[in-house]
Amino acid sequence: MKSKDVPTEGPALATTKASSVVMVNTGEGKGKSTAAFGTAMRAVARGWKVCVIQFVKSGKWKVGEEKAAVSLGIEWLTIGDGFTWDSKNMDRTEAIARHAWTVSKEKIRSGDYGLVVLDEITYPMNWGWIPTAEVVDVIKNRPPSVNIIATGRDAPAELVELADTVTEMRKTKHAFDRGVRAIRGIDF
Amino acid sequence: MKSKDVPTEGPALATTKASSVVMVNTGEGKGKSTAAFGTAMRAVARGWKVCVIQFVKSGKWKVGEEKAAVSLGIEWLTIGDGFTWDSKNMDRTEAIARHAWTVSKEKIRSGDYGLVVLDEITYPMNWGWIPTAEVVDVIKNRPPSVNIIATGRDAPAELVELADTVTEMRKTKHAFDRGVRAIRGIDF
Repeated sequence: MKSKDVPTEGPALATTKASSVVMVNTGEGKGKSTAAFGTAMRAVARGWKVCVIQFVKSGKWKVGEEKAAVSLGIEWLTIGDGFTWDSKNMDRTEAIARHAWTVSKEKIRSGDYGLVVLDEITYPMNWGWIPTAEVVDVIKNRPPSVNIIATGRDAPAELVELADTVTEMRKTKHAFDRGVRAIRGIDF
Repeated sequence: MKSKDVPTEGPALATTKASSVVMVNTGEGKGKSTAAFGTAMRAVARGWKVCVIQFVKSGKWKVGEEKAAVSLGIEWLTIGDGFTWDSKNMDRTEAIARHAWTVSKEKIRSGDYGLVVLDEITYPMNWGWIPTAEVVDVIKNRPPSVNIIATGRDAPAELVELADTVTEMRKTKHAFDRGVRAIRGIDF
C-alpha cells in the first residue's frame, strides 16, 4: 500500500444504539481471554461495575491479570478447578464448574454489572457440564444494561447465533508449537 | 462433546526457554488492541516496566483503557494524530506517525521495558510512512529481555515472518455491521 491509499473517508455512521451487546471470543489462537480483560479494563475505567468469572482457572493459580484487575476494582472470581488433566476428582471439577455458572447467573440477573466476563465458559458447556440452552436463555433475557463477553474454543453454535460480535482468534503461528515455554508476564 | 471427551492429558511439555517473544495481533476482527492491553495488564502486574505507543489514536481522544493503564503504572503514549479521514494536514499526520516510531525505537533499544506495545503500527507501515525493513531490524536486534506486541490489520509479511506468535482476529460477525453504534465502556 502506498501513501495514496491512506483512507480519507471514514466508515458509514452507525444509527442503532444498543443498550448492551454480547461478544464471543473463540478459536484456537491467543488473545481470547486477554481481549476480554482489555475490554474489562476499559469498562471499569468508565465507572462500570465489572465482574470476571473464570470457569477453568482455579484460585490456586494467582495470575498477573487478576492482581491488576483487582487493583482496578474489577471483581475477579476464579471458581474453576484448574486444568482437567490435573483433576484428581472429575465429579468435583464438574460440580465446581456448575457452581461457577450458578454464581454467573446471579451476577447477570442482578443487573448490577455493566460487564460480566464468562472466561473459558465454552469448555464446561462443551463437556456437557453446563446446559448450553440455559446459558443462552439467561444471556438472552438479561437486564438490558448488562454486556456479556464469553470466551473459549469451539463456542457452541447457539451462543454464536445469539451474540452481536463474534471473533475467531486464529492461530497463524504460536511460540508454544516450537516448544517455547510460557513466559510469566506474557502468557500468565 | 460429551463428558467423556474432557481432556485428561495436558499438552506436551515445552522445553525451550525464550528470553522474550514477538507477538502480532492482526486481522479484521475485534480484539487486536484489547488483547495487547490485557497482556500489558498481566506484564505490569509482574513488576515489569511496560510501554504502550499508539500510532493512530491521538492524545485528544482519552479512552478508558488509557485511564486504567496509567493507574496500573503502564506508560501510555498516544502519539498518533487520530483517524486519517479526520486529518486536515496529511503531511503533519505522517510526521506524527514517524515521530511515534522514533520514540518507539528509543523505548525498545533502551532495554528498560519488559514489554513494548506498538498499537496500530501496521497502518503507517502499510501507508509507507515508516520503513518496514527498519521496524523488523529494530525488533530483531532488540535487547533480549524486551517482549514486543504489534497490532493492526494487514500485518506486513516480514513482520509475520519475524514474530513468534501471530494471531489473526477473524470477524465472524460484528455489531457495527448491523449499524450498532460503538458503546462507551466496550468499544472505547
